[in-house]
Amino acid sequence: MSRNILILPGDGIGPEITAEAVKILEAARSEGLDITLSEGKVGGAGYDAAGHPLPAETLEAAKAADAILLGAVGGPQWDKLGDISLRPERGLLGLRKELELFANLRPAILYPQLAEASSLKPEVVSGLDIMIVRELTGGIYFGQPRGIERRDGQQVGYNTYVYSESEIERIGRTAFEMAQKRNKKLCSVDKANVLEVTMLWRDVMERISADYPDVELSHMYVDNAAMQLVRAPKQFDVVVTGNMFGDILSDEAAMLTGSIGMLPSASLNAGGQGMYEPCHGSAPDIAGQGIANPLATILSVAMMLRYSLNEAAWAERIEKAVGVVLDEGLRTADIAYAGTRKVSTSEMGDAVLAAF
Amino acid sequence: MSRNILILPGDGIGPEITAEAVKILEAARSEGLDITLSEGKVGGAGYDAAGHPLPAETLEAAKAADAILLGAVGGPQWDKLGDISLRPERGLLGLRKELELFANLRPAILYPQLAEASSLKPEVVSGLDIMIVRELTGGIYFGQPRGIERRDGQQVGYNTYVYSESEIERIGRTAFEMAQKRNKKLCSVDKANVLEVTMLWRDVMERISADYPDVELSHMYVDNAAMQLVRAPKQFDVVVTGNMFGDILSDEAAMLTGSIGMLPSASLNAGGQGMYEPCHGSAPDIAGQGIANPLATILSVAMMLRYSLNEAAWAERIEKAVGVVLDEGLRTADIAYAGTRKVSTSEMGDAVLAAF
Ligand SMILES: CC(C)[C@H](C(=O)O)[C@@H](O)C(=O)O
Ligand SMILES: CC(C)[C@H](C(=O)O)[C@@H](O)C(=O)O
Repeated sequence: MSRNILILPGDGIGPEITAEAVKILEAARSEGLDITLSEGKVGGAGYDAAGHPLPAETLEAAKAADAILLGAVGGPQWDKLGDISLRPERGLLGLRKELELFANLRPAILYPQLAEASSLKPEVVSGLDIMIVRELTGGIYFGQPRGIERRDGQQVGYNTYVYSESEIERIGRTAFEMAQKRNKKLCSVDKANVLEVTMLWRDVMERISADYPDVELSHMYVDNAAMQLVRAPKQFDVVVTGNMFGDILSDEAAMLTGSIGMLPSASLNAGGQGMYEPCHGSAPDIAGQGIANPLATILSVAMMLRYSLNEAAWAERIEKAVGVVLDEGLRTADIAYAGTRKVSTSEMGDAVLAAF
Repeated sequence: MSRNILILPGDGIGPEITAEAVKILEAARSEGLDITLSEGKVGGAGYDAAGHPLPAETLEAAKAADAILLGAVGGPQWDKLGDISLRPERGLLGLRKELELFANLRPAILYPQLAEASSLKPEVVSGLDIMIVRELTGGIYFGQPRGIERRDGQQVGYNTYVYSESEIERIGRTAFEMAQKRNKKLCSVDKANVLEVTMLWRDVMERISADYPDVELSHMYVDNAAMQLVRAPKQFDVVVTGNMFGDILSDEAAMLTGSIGMLPSASLNAGGQGMYEPCHGSAPDIAGQGIANPLATILSVAMMLRYSLNEAAWAERIEKAVGVVLDEGLRTADIAYAGTRKVSTSEMGDAVLAAF
C-alpha cells in the first residue's frame, strides 16, 4: 500500500531545501520504497496563491497524507499584514492544531565532523545528544481568551497559558516512552514555583512516572534549564516541556551544536501521522541564492521514514549518506570553515544522493 | 540625612553572603557614608519566624527603607508547603509587587580574570557586557485569572499573560534611557508572531522609540534571542523584555559568563527605591558550609549605592576592590581553577574589605 507524502515547501529558502530532500525521496521510490508525492502551498506562499496561509485544499491534502514534509514559513513581506490570522505562521500553527500534532520531537545532536561550529568549548558539547519533547497543540500558543482590547482608557494585551491533565499526560507518556528507548533519564521543565498551570504539569508528570519505573524523572525550573543548557548540556537526555518553554529551550539547545542547519524535527499525532521540518526558519535574507543548507530537511525525511512510515532501514541509509558527505568535507556556507569544501544547496543534495 | 538600608538575608546561603556585604557597608559607614542598617526576615526564614514568607513587619520596614539588600530565598524544606501562597518565593514576589519594583536590571558581564570559567569559547564571550532590563511586576507572574480547577471532569491549570500599554511604556522608557547611557542599542524581545500581548509590547516599543532618536531599536523573537545569546552574545547591548522571558533570558545570559556567583541585580521603582540581590539563588546544597561566593552580593551593594543612594564614587570603590581580589587570584570554589587560591566565603569578604 503506497504511502502519501505531502511536500509543503513554504517560503524563503523552503523551496530550495525541500527540492533536495525530494531528490532523496524520489531515489528511494525508484529503488522500491512505495510512496506517492504531492505538493501544496502553505504560509506566505499559501496567502499569495489562495489568500490564506493554510488554504482549504492544503489542509485537506494534509489530513489525507501519511506524512508531511515542510520547508519553512514566513518572511518580511507578510509581516505587515494587519490581520494576524493571515500571517504565514498561522499556516504552520493551523496544521499543528488541525492534525493534532501534539508531540514535537527536537533532537539537538552534535555531529563530530562539525564540532568546531559550536560556540561552546569542545569538551562541553562533544557527543551532545539531547531530545527535546515539546507539547505543540496547547499551552499559551492556543489558549483562550486572547486578544488586545481597551480597558480603562488604554490598550491591554492578553494571552492564556492553559493545560488540562489529559493534555499533559499525553505528552508526558510520549516523553517517558522516548526516554525508555534512550538513556532512561527524563527532565520535565516548568515554572512550578510561580505558575499554577505548571504546578499541575509537575503533578501529572509525577503521577504518570509510576508507570515508567525504569525512567528517572527530574524536574527543573525553566530559568535554571536555560542556564544548565549553557553550563553542562550533557546532563540532559530527554527533556519534556510545554509549547512556549519548548520553543525557547529547543532553539537554545539546537544552537549549542552551532549547526542549526543540520537539525530536523518531527511533529506527531496519536495515530503516528507526522509533519517533518528543519528546526531552522525560512531565512529570507539568503533565499534564492542557492546557499542554504538542505541537510536538516534531508534528515527530516529520515525522521519521517522512521516515525511515520516505519521504514527505519531507509532512514539509516539517509543518515549514513549525510555522514559520508560530512566526512568528505563538504559544507554549505553556514557550516563551512577553513579546510572544508564549500558547496551550494544543490551540490550538497547531489552529494547526499550520490552517497545514498 | 541618613539613608535606611534593610538587609534581608533570606534562606540557604543568603545569611552567609549578606554578612560579607554588610561588612563592606559598615566599613563605608565608619568612613563617613551616612547609612543606617536594619535586618528583617523574608522567604522561608519569614515563614519559620512569623508564619508568612513576607511578614507584615518586613513589608513595613521595606516600604520605609531607601534600599533593600536581599540574599536569596527558597529551599527544599518549604517546597512541600501545600499552600503556594506561603512558599518562600512569594516573599520575593510580594516585595516586588508591593514596592512596585517594575524595573529589574540584570547585567551579564564577563570579568576578564574569570574568562576561563565560561563554557563558551573565549572569542565568543571576551568583553561581554549585556544589560537585561526585565519587567518585574506584571506579565504572567501576576496576571489574573489564574489557578487550577476542575473542568469537564479533569483538572485544568491556567495563568494569564497580560500587559497594559502603560506598563510596557514604563519599562520601555527605563530601557531606552539605559541604552542612552550605554552603546545606544536596544533589542526588545517578544513573541509577536504568536502572542497578542507581545504584539502590543512591540507596538508600544516602536511608538516610544520616537522619543529616543539616538537609540537604535531592534526586535527579536524570544526563541531567536535564546539562540543568538549562545551564538553571538556580543551583538547585544541592552535587552528589554517581559517578566517571564526576562527570567529565562537573564539566567541564560548570566551563565554565558560562567560565573553566576559574580552577578548582581537591581529592582527599581519609579521613585528610585530599589531592592538589590545576587542573580544566583539560595543554593541550599552548599548552605552553611562557608564556601558560597559573596561577590555577587557585594557587587549588589555597589549597584545599590549607584542607583538608589546616588553614591557612584562609593560604588566604584567597591567594584575596584573586587577587581583587586580577582587580580590577586583569590577564588571561591565556584570560580576556582588550577593556579588560583581557593578561599572561603568570609576570606573572600575580608579580602574585599582589605582592598576597599
Ligand atoms: C514560526 C513560529 C510560529 C514557530 C513556533 O513558535 O512554534 C517556530 O518558532 C517553531 O518553533 O516552530
Ligand atoms: C525565585 C523566582 C520566583 C524568581 C523569578 O522567577 O522571578 C527568580 O527565578 C528570579 O529570577 O529572581
